[in-house]
Amino acid sequence: MEIDLGAADALLISADSDRNQDLYYATRFRAPDPFIFLWTRAGKLLLARDLELDRARLQAQVDIVQAASHYEDKLRQQGVDRPTSHDILLALLQDRGLARLKVPTDFPLATADFLRQSGIVLEVASAPLFAQRQIKTPAEIDALRRAMRATEQGMQTAVEAIGAAEVHDGLLHLDGQVLTSEGLRQRIHLRLMELDCVGQHTIVAGGEQGCDPHQEGSGPLRAGETIIIDIFPRAASGYFGDITRTLVKGQAPPALKALFDVVLRGQQLALERIRSGVPGKDIHQAIKDLFVAEGYETGEKDGYMQGFFHSTGHGLGLEIHEAPSIGPREGLLQKNHVVTVEPGLYYRGLGGVRIEDVVVVQEDGCENLTTFPKYLEVE
Amino acid sequence: MEIDLGAADALLISADSDRNQDLYYATRFRAPDPFIFLWTRAGKLLLARDLELDRARLQAQVDIVQAASHYEDKLRQQGVDRPTSHDILLALLQDRGLARLKVPTDFPLATADFLRQSGIVLEVASAPLFAQRQIKTPAEIDALRRAMRATEQGMQTAVEAIGAAEVHDGLLHLDGQVLTSEGLRQRIHLRLMELDCVGQHTIVAGGEQGCDPHQEGSGPLRAGETIIIDIFPRAASGYFGDITRTLVKGQAPPALKALFDVVLRGQQLALERIRSGVPGKDIHQAIKDLFVAEGYETGEKDGYMQGFFHSTGHGLGLEIHEAPSIGPREGLLQKNHVVTVEPGLYYRGLGGVRIEDVVVVQEDGCENLTTFPKYLEVE
Repeated sequence: MEIDLGAADALLISADSDRNQDLYYATRFRAPDPFIFLWTRAGKLLLARDLELDRARLQAQVDIVQAASHYEDKLRQQGVDRPTSHDILLALLQDRGLARLKVPTDFPLATADFLRQSGIVLEVASAPLFAQRQIKTPAEIDALRRAMRATEQGMQTAVEAIGAAEVHDGLLHLDGQVLTSEGLRQRIHLRLMELDCVGQHTIVAGGEQGCDPHQEGSGPLRAGETIIIDIFPRAASGYFGDITRTLVKGQAPPALKALFDVVLRGQQLALERIRSGVPGKDIHQAIKDLFVAEGYETGEKDGYMQGFFHSTGHGLGLEIHEAPSIGPREGLLQKNHVVTVEPGLYYRGLGGVRIEDVVVVQEDGCENLTTFPKYLEVE
Repeated sequence: MEIDLGAADALLISADSDRNQDLYYATRFRAPDPFIFLWTRAGKLLLARDLELDRARLQAQVDIVQAASHYEDKLRQQGVDRPTSHDILLALLQDRGLARLKVPTDFPLATADFLRQSGIVLEVASAPLFAQRQIKTPAEIDALRRAMRATEQGMQTAVEAIGAAEVHDGLLHLDGQVLTSEGLRQRIHLRLMELDCVGQHTIVAGGEQGCDPHQEGSGPLRAGETIIIDIFPRAASGYFGDITRTLVKGQAPPALKALFDVVLRGQQLALERIRSGVPGKDIHQAIKDLFVAEGYETGEKDGYMQGFFHSTGHGLGLEIHEAPSIGPREGLLQKNHVVTVEPGLYYRGLGGVRIEDVVVVQEDGCENLTTFPKYLEVE
């Protein structure tokens, strides 16, 4: 990976790499507490606390790992009684002669104000910080493919549980108990954990709950209404899988079948059009147009957002939501972008349907990393 | 909860509440993508995208949920072709007459620069943003206690696996396979998931690997050397548990027994001294002094940090590491602080020992939320 520093002496990131994936991407070092990363024309430098020093030296893909305590000791010798993390950072910059720095858009303001008051020039980089993070390498695509295989195993567990469930008084029962969103979510999470994937916030949303796309879902699951299952675990590699299927236990009413069919057509339309060089917003608009043409309107109704009111897709990688987006904004799809394709329609009193695959953009189309079949009814 | 705005019109946070726990603490609303939160003297306001609007209205503990699209539409009517999230934020502030804002230390610099250039005055709050987050309510202590019970079940799973393992050629074997750090970690994670807790980065570090306190550990586990097990899952409540035990399969060499005993004495010394009004640094120093008095030195040796080179403890709550710290810095322990107490000693060629409990600070001592026994050897 290369970086364009422009007029700056270095790129500076101050964050923890559990949460900041650009930092992890640049260093391949995971740490739960903030550390300093500098990328100069001479190479990459990581400033670590004593606690992380040896692990950073072992694991971080950087050129130099320096001890924060080195500068801390130096400052104490210079008479600074209790050097702060800001003092230490400034000492490092001065020691290395770095006066003009590029920083990410989410660089912490308190640190920025301190550095600027100390004469350091900060220049905010445009987002995304590492444009090349969107273009997945073969190794990354392989990691995403493996994450998708595990994610599909989670979906398989869900389908099997719904299939095995019996219906009493309209409610799903399994192993002598009412099958709830919580219970089904736990089955999915246990299966994912067996495959070394961590599922969190998995959506198992029945009926009306499914009309709210980020509602995780709770309570008993019912036959004859939609159950939206959206699984997006992180694999041990750090990369995410992501899949959504919408299921009905038993027979679906005709209006739900029609809703499912039009969402599926919307997704197929997108899958057919995705290729390198296509504007994401054209694909998003085409789905919106199809839905309107078929009589499925979008907007606030009865006090709720209804219809198709989210983007068609998002980039997938070290983050569950990352660039690029397939939505109303500008931007061309490029070769080896990995994106979700997940149109949905949601109507109060009817139900919600969302269908989501993950694809790799290619020159002349896309490769679908998802193999899980698409159907509505589970007997 | 109350907030001291000083001369400011409002507190402003722009972040996602999956990662920013102050934002979750103030709103009790979880969202994976950034949103705007304003806390004025009149109350709390959340600005949500359409996708999150209904869920925010249902779940967020705020006074007003406003749609970002309201301002987006307004800006479009005013001739702004593609309003950015910055434009929308500024429109909201102007609409509400908010010109002077308090922001957290980690407020994103790009947004700060934009607002300042637009005439908004920003004042960086001191950290931690919500001092009262350190003082746990009875409901929070209950959530932490329940998280600890589940965490201890994870430790019990680990102890049982090590106990059931057979030793061949010095390596642990279980169910006909070599027992590895990875395998034991997965057993712990599955047990935690059964209890609706998500374990991540769980440390199962044998022998030399344990000398690096944040090394997660990999490969076969061996008899006769230390295995550090540090489990810190997040419960469904959002609160973390945290426990460390150091175990040896079979008989431990006398030098390891001595190391274990001195770390245990260090921890007991801390547990006896912790109470409201005591400076955390005094407790940290007392442990350091004990270790030195017993001949266990700290510093860089043979190119590695060795001895006791991390803090004694950290606050525990919605984050695994939060204020207050029990370490070299200033600060008094206060009633209903919840903190870990986890001294450790690490020597290359010998091994590492760390023992960690979680306690609630009280007027006249502390309540230990940890019930798991402390012993070194597992037969």
